[in-house]
Amino acid sequence: MNALIMVLPGDGTGPEVTDQAVEVLETVAELYGHRFTIRTDLVGMDAIEAYGAAIADDTLADCAQADAILFGAVGGLTQVGDGPRPEQALFRLRTEFELFANLRPVRPFGALIDASPLKPEYLKGTDLLFVRELSAGLYYGHLETVPGKPSEIRRRGNRMEAIDTLLYTEDQIERVVRTAFELAGTRRRNVTSVDKANVLSSSVLWRRVVERVAREHPEVTWEHMLVDTCAMRLIRNPAEFDVVVTENLFGDILTDEASMLAGSIGMLPSASLGSRRTPGGVFGLYEPVHGSAPDIARQDRANPIGAILSAAMLLRHSLGLHPEAAAVEAAVEAVLADGFRTEDIAYAGGTAIGTAELGSRVREQL
Amino acid sequence: MNALIMVLPGDGTGPEVTDQAVEVLETVAELYGHRFTIRTDLVGMDAIEAYGAAIADDTLADCAQADAILFGAVGGLTQVGDGPRPEQALFRLRTEFELFANLRPVRPFGALIDASPLKPEYLKGTDLLFVRELSAGLYYGHLETVPGKPSEIRRRGNRMEAIDTLLYTEDQIERVVRTAFELAGTRRRNVTSVDKANVLSSSVLWRRVVERVAREHPEVTWEHMLVDTCAMRLIRNPAEFDVVVTENLFGDILTDEASMLAGSIGMLPSASLGSRRTPGGVFGLYEPVHGSAPDIARQDRANPIGAILSAAMLLRHSLGLHPEAAAVEAAVEAVLADGFRTEDIAYAGGTAIGTAELGSRVREQL
Ligand SMILES: CC(C)[C@H](C(=O)O)[C@@H](O)C(=O)O
Ligand SMILES: CC(C)[C@H](C(=O)O)[C@@H](O)C(=O)O
Repeated sequence: MNALIMVLPGDGTGPEVTDQAVEVLETVAELYGHRFTIRTDLVGMDAIEAYGAAIADDTLADCAQADAILFGAVGGLTQVGDGPRPEQALFRLRTEFELFANLRPVRPFGALIDASPLKPEYLKGTDLLFVRELSAGLYYGHLETVPGKPSEIRRRGNRMEAIDTLLYTEDQIERVVRTAFELAGTRRRNVTSVDKANVLSSSVLWRRVVERVAREHPEVTWEHMLVDTCAMRLIRNPAEFDVVVTENLFGDILTDEASMLAGSIGMLPSASLGSRRTPGGVFGLYEPVHGSAPDIARQDRANPIGAILSAAMLLRHSLGLHPEAAAVEAAVEAVLADGFRTEDIAYAGGTAIGTAELGSRVREQL
Repeated sequence: MNALIMVLPGDGTGPEVTDQAVEVLETVAELYGHRFTIRTDLVGMDAIEAYGAAIADDTLADCAQADAILFGAVGGLTQVGDGPRPEQALFRLRTEFELFANLRPVRPFGALIDASPLKPEYLKGTDLLFVRELSAGLYYGHLETVPGKPSEIRRRGNRMEAIDTLLYTEDQIERVVRTAFELAGTRRRNVTSVDKANVLSSSVLWRRVVERVAREHPEVTWEHMLVDTCAMRLIRNPAEFDVVVTENLFGDILTDEASMLAGSIGMLPSASLGSRRTPGGVFGLYEPVHGSAPDIARQDRANPIGAILSAAMLLRHSLGLHPEAAAVEAAVEAVLADGFRTEDIAYAGGTAIGTAELGSRVREQL
């Protein structure tokens, strides 16, 4: 197949891990007879310097042409003054393309089980997929679309107060819950919906929508769970979860907590899906869960696995290339089983190698 | 000293664990020559049946006379219809007495280190104190005191939407942050303030207040941390934290996550402090972190340690009896070191005994 992939490497370790992921995509194209056109542009700190914004309008226009975006990381060691912030690139991409479903699979690799803070017997069988709502909630309280319900700091008498607004429409809940139930159908057919319905009105509406969508999927078992309970059970019994769906801010907290199950955050991929259809699936943005880690940038020390597995998700969700995606995941697994590791996971035994060598070993396995 | 203690045992396992805690208080009174007057009343399901409300106005009036409240747990197996809910007792107590600072210490007992899902080397040195803001934020979006900023589900066009409001005043932030810095002064002198300042206006105001209060406490080191980062670091490196202060809902999630470090939630005490001064400290409500666990109620199976350690916090924070509080904590530690355990922690080795026997062994150690 032909596909256009927009690559935004960004700051810190973003470029070096993205390089490895792009080379993996090129190897896949060669081996399976696809034609991937790669277009690259600046994002984050370099974009602020070159274009005066964390992402330029022209770059967004190019993204709109593409089937998918492969994203590295944004953010630097220091924030200079009050100017544009590198994270704004992510927010602009999320809003511009209505990326509403953030997918984060967490499956500790057998070879790395010792790298986790959890005891191996607690991790056994863990294979979960978070679906975090990414387009609404407290993150967007400042938007003008909610007149009179702002996010702001303001004077009250002779002191200050601050307000944020958590708003969800039925449609915003429905599309992400539907995505979760559909994905569960391709997995172990179980959904845990996480909320705080004993406190929040938005959670009460969330529950109603979940119950309606669940009726359309009788083959999927499901339950409601309170967010505080979920924060405990993710550690106490992670293997009980298959697909976990939740609103934006709960998802931010719980996915980062769950990332610790995998030993190193450097291992974890993510996908942020929109609703525009592509020939093979839906448009999406793919990025490793780890940040830009400027302290180890350009030293061949970063773990490229999060980026490479993000490329595998791109193959699966935006291009519909399921066997190719599975082949990349199997190649990563094989390299780890052979004992090769970047330094962040090297304490789990094995041979420490650099970013580039790990990437080329994955390509060899392909 | 003379003190009046209001005891509200509540539902499920609440009464049996509270009994043990009350007997510990009585033993302390005898040994150290104090006079504790104990007054008991209904709360939760029994109160709904007897008085038609989860807590009666008369009970609240009695609480107002007391130096402290010892609380068990509320909540049943089933919620009958749309009537009053047992949790409302907690909310009424929190609002009536402006209990703004919820303290939850987490310190895994050496004898129980094997009961935690975390590897012992990750737990080593863990001794942290959460200070959760308990009187504001998303929990109170429905209150009329914020006109036009409600919590509700409402129609929008032909679909529904739901809104919740996160509001903090400078005063609400300041009093809880000040409590955290003062408590840090009695411990390892470090504060981690947790927020989401890259997204929320309320967190930006929170940071400003923290920076101001921190200047009044030059002997205390401190840092800001994002809530998603904190959710990771609590597992990756719990020993780095001394006092952690955060807003209401973040605190709800993070304290439950952190409770897993201690092996069993049955071990953990909590205090909810108000600002009314008592002869020995401040008025507060003390309760174990675990819920009512109706499935094991009245079978002598519940762990009374959370309740007993809550009584120790009562001695310390509301009555100012520091040596007595430390003696109770040491007695619990000694019983565990001798190998006695209730069933929830019995898999960490040792001899399984019932609720009442564990309580009487703690009293013997005193
Ligand atoms: C950078 C930050 C605003 C962002 C978020 O909270 O969404 C990040 O934590 C993430 O999870 O992608
Ligand atoms: C019962 C519930 C509303 C409550 C809360 O969220 O505050 C509980 O989880 C707690 O932490 O005390």
